[in-house]
Formats: sequence, structure tokens, C-alpha cells
Amino acid sequence: MVAKTVSMERSEFSQLPTDPKLLRSMFRSGELDGFTSGMAPGRVQANLVILPVKQAFDFLLFCQRNPKPCPLLEVVEPGSFAEPIRMAPGSDLRTDLPRYRVYEHGELVEEPTDINTFWQEDMVSFLLGCSFTFESALVNAGISIPHYESGKNTAMFITSVDTETAGVFSGPLVVSMRSIPKDKIVKAVQITSRYPSVHGAPVHIGDPSAIGIKDVHKPDIGDVVKIENGDVPVFWACGVTPQAVAMSSKPPIMITHSPGHMFITDKLNEDVAAL
Amino acid sequence: MVAKTVSMERSEFSQLPTDPKLLRSMFRSGELDGFTSGMAPGRVQANLVILPVKQAFDFLLFCQRNPKPCPLLEVVEPGSFAEPIRMAPGSDLRTDLPRYRVYEHGELVEEPTDINTFWQEDMVSFLLGCSFTFESALVNAGISIPHYESGKNTAMFITSVDTETAGVFSGPLVVSMRSIPKDKIVKAVQITSRYPSVHGAPVHIGDPSAIGIKDVHKPDIGDVVKIENGDVPVFWACGVTPQAVAMSSKPPIMITHSPGHMFITDKLNEDVAAL
Repeated sequence: MVAKTVSMERSEFSQLPTDPKLLRSMFRSGELDGFTSGMAPGRVQANLVILPVKQAFDFLLFCQRNPKPCPLLEVVEPGSFAEPIRMAPGSDLRTDLPRYRVYEHGELVEEPTDINTFWQEDMVSFLLGCSFTFESALVNAGISIPHYESGKNTAMFITSVDTETAGVFSGPLVVSMRSIPKDKIVKAVQITSRYPSVHGAPVHIGDPSAIGIKDVHKPDIGDVVKIENGDVPVFWACGVTPQAVAMSSKPPIMITHSPGHMFITDKLNEDVAAL
Repeated sequence: MVAKTVSMERSEFSQLPTDPKLLRSMFRSGELDGFTSGMAPGRVQANLVILPVKQAFDFLLFCQRNPKPCPLLEVVEPGSFAEPIRMAPGSDLRTDLPRYRVYEHGELVEEPTDINTFWQEDMVSFLLGCSFTFESALVNAGISIPHYESGKNTAMFITSVDTETAGVFSGPLVVSMRSIPKDKIVKAVQITSRYPSVHGAPVHIGDPSAIGIKDVHKPDIGDVVKIENGDVPVFWACGVTPQAVAMSSKPPIMITHSPGHMFITDKLNEDVAAL
């Protein structure tokens, strides 16, 4: 069962609270749903991966070996009540995201708005950096990101590039694409290099076929992003990569955020900048 | 049993090979011993921590939470014959360092030149960045580091600052100190910020007592470093921290490099620079 997601117009966003705690409580109560892109401007949003402790060492090692798609912001170990005390004290990762995906043996089985019924005491939660942080920085530098500004989802592609295997985890690199004007590519590389903990610098610039993308206007995940005349497609490692890994590695259970439905933390984007 | 270490003068270094593979084979055969500071200029040297797989998740999480003292370069899992294929293919971590330390329940029991007799099939090896990389960058930028240039060991201190706990691992932050001229402090911060995977920017500048150091001329580990007139002591997180952690966390067995006796990798310092 894959649920329909709600897309909000930018004008509706202005009526939402900007306090991350309030937004999380609205997701928890079910009052609010939908893509989080553009919500709580200036705050770090995070990808979520939850696994039983048995798979946790392999996955932590997978993140260490693949820091671009899997940049770790925080790891919440068993016995911590799913509370990420560093990124969002007082929150609960089981209820505070708008929508989740539950995989069993690599198959998507449900896309619920909380995961209380799937929670096991020995689960480890991983919060991973998300491109919204650097998209915000790009917009601040005058580089237009239409999907970010309209609150839509980005275009994501499963590439022909393999991640580095760690234990049971292996699979293809997933990237997100942005259409960047030719004269702003260097600036886009510089800006995103400041944020290694939210995917960092691009993994590829230009020709989509070089990384196994057949049609750049047919994303595997997310919305179509049009490439304007004179623009170049630029590709960043994407936090959806762990989902592709889940599908090919088939752990008994794995829970992630639903694409575009991120965990909104208390941290400011500048808190995670390298320099 | 704590072995005496051999200190080489800079003039003797010029007679050593610069090829990391050759140096590792000389350590393996026992032909060469002593501090590695200044050897194989331009190559990344690494701290080593070896633990049974049972402690490995906790330690990997400890590194994730304490990236400044424990910046991971590579993790070698069981079944890999202690070969770090990314940093030094063909090498063997059980023999290719000049000197090791073996801790049992937090007590230093031996300081051998190989660890074949202590090796267990289920051991996980962690290679962590070492300050030699950024010392080399500081020297290249005209900032004098006398102990580095003379092949001596740096001055290290156990501070009053706690690391972030992960599972069984907790303990004080260990720092290394360098005496930096007042007008070069900003430059020293900028240069070391480029190298987050080898401890990165300083953790403290100035007053040693602010981080619990009583006498900056009495290091807990390593050699005395004199603070020249007009210089300021600057402190960086140190890869010896895991040894302090070993002592306070008392795992059944833990093997590390002996201070100053690092693993010389094939990688160039620029390979691990952030920008």
C-alpha cells in the first residue's frame, strides 16, 4: 500500500508554524501530512533509517564507507526511546515524521504515518543528512531551485554506480538532480562542498548517461524536474540510497522515511556546515 | 613491559626509503623500529585500534560521535585478513606497524613489534586519522613544528573534557599541543580545517587550564614541547584518545599502535583533504 502524498503550494507554507517542535507535534497528531521541503526554513531536515541491532554494525559501516549518500547526523541506540537527543531533544522518531516506509525482506509493505506497531525494543535509528539544507544554501546564493521553492519533491534516479559494500548491505547509488545554469555550476559546487554532512559536493556534472541514467526527464523516484535551455543537470548523492540498498539487501525489517517526508530537526543549517 | 622507543635524527631519515610499501616491509621484518613522524613525507599515517567484533558496533558509534579524536579512515571487518584494501592494499595490520600496545581489561600488558600471537579471527581493525598529515601541511605553510621536523613525538595531555559516550566506551579527550606564533594562529586554524579526517580544526586555543591541563610543560604522553616567547599553545584532538578510553572502559582485549608508531598508508595527504 503506497499512500498518496500531499503537495502544498508555497503560499500555504506561510501559514504553517516555523518552530520545528510545533511541526513535529502536528505530524505526531496527524494534523499535518505531506512533503516537508520548504518547511521550517533554516532547519536541518533528515533522512531516517531504522534497523534491528543485528544489522546495525553493518549499516553503520555502510555509512562510514558511503558518506556522500549516507552522511550520519545522529545514531540512536536501543534503550533511548527513539529520541535523538542531539538533533531534536524531546522528539520521538516513531511518530514525528509525516510518513514512513516499512520494508520486509526488501519489499515495501506499508507507508504509514507512524510506526508504533512496527517498533521493536532492539531497533537502532540512523538520521542522515538531506539535500534540503544545501538547497536552501543554493537559493540563498541566487541559484534557483524551482522544486524546492514550490514545495515539490526533487527528481531522483537509481544509477549504474555501485555503493561500497559493508556486510549485508550493497546496492546502487541513488542521486538527486538539479538543473543549474552553466555560469553557476562552480558556485553550486563550492556552496555544497561546505556541507559534507548533508551529501556535500556533487557526484557528477553533465551527461546523465555517464552514470546510467537513460532519460533525465523520467525520474525513478520523485517529480520531473525540467532542464531549462542553457542549464546543465548536476547530480548529488541522495539519502534515498539506503532504500535502494534495503531492496537489494533484503533485511527482515527496515523502516525509512517516505521520500520527501523528512524528519525536521532543531538544528540550524549553519550548525552542520564544515566551514 | 613498555619498550624503549628509538628516536631518529632528521639526517638519518634521508637514508630511509620513501615508498610506504618498503617502509612497511622493514617494520614487518623488524629491520626498522621507532617513531614514524617525518617518514614517507606526503603520505597519510594512521592510528590503529583493534577490537573483537563484540565491541565493534559500540566503538564505531563512539567514532561517529567523536569525529575529532576518532576520525575514521577505514574499518577492516572480520574475514579480511587485517588488510586495509582502501588505504594500503597488500599490507597486514598485524605486522606492518613498528610497535603496538596490547591492553587487557584496560591494563597495558605488552608493547610488541607484531601482534600475531594476540590476533583473533573475529577482530575488527579501525584506522584513524593522525595529526602528522596536518603537521606536514602546517610546515608547508611556513609554520614551524619543531618536534615534527626533528622526528620526535608531540606533547599529549589527558584533558578534563569528556568524550561522548557510546555503549561501553567513554573517557576523557586526549589532545596534542603545538606552540604557534600569535600571528599564525588564524592560518593554523584554516589549514587544519581542510583535514577533518585527520582531527581537523583545533579544539582549544590558549589557556591550558581551561581544558584541565595543569602544566603545559609536563605532558602526560610524548615529549616536552617548549612554548617560545610570543607563541600560544594550540590544542588538537588526538588519536591517542581511544587508548585513554581503553583504560577507562576496560574491554577484555584492545590493541592499538604505540604512541608515535603509526601505520604508514599509501594515500597522499591531499587524498584526505576536504577541499
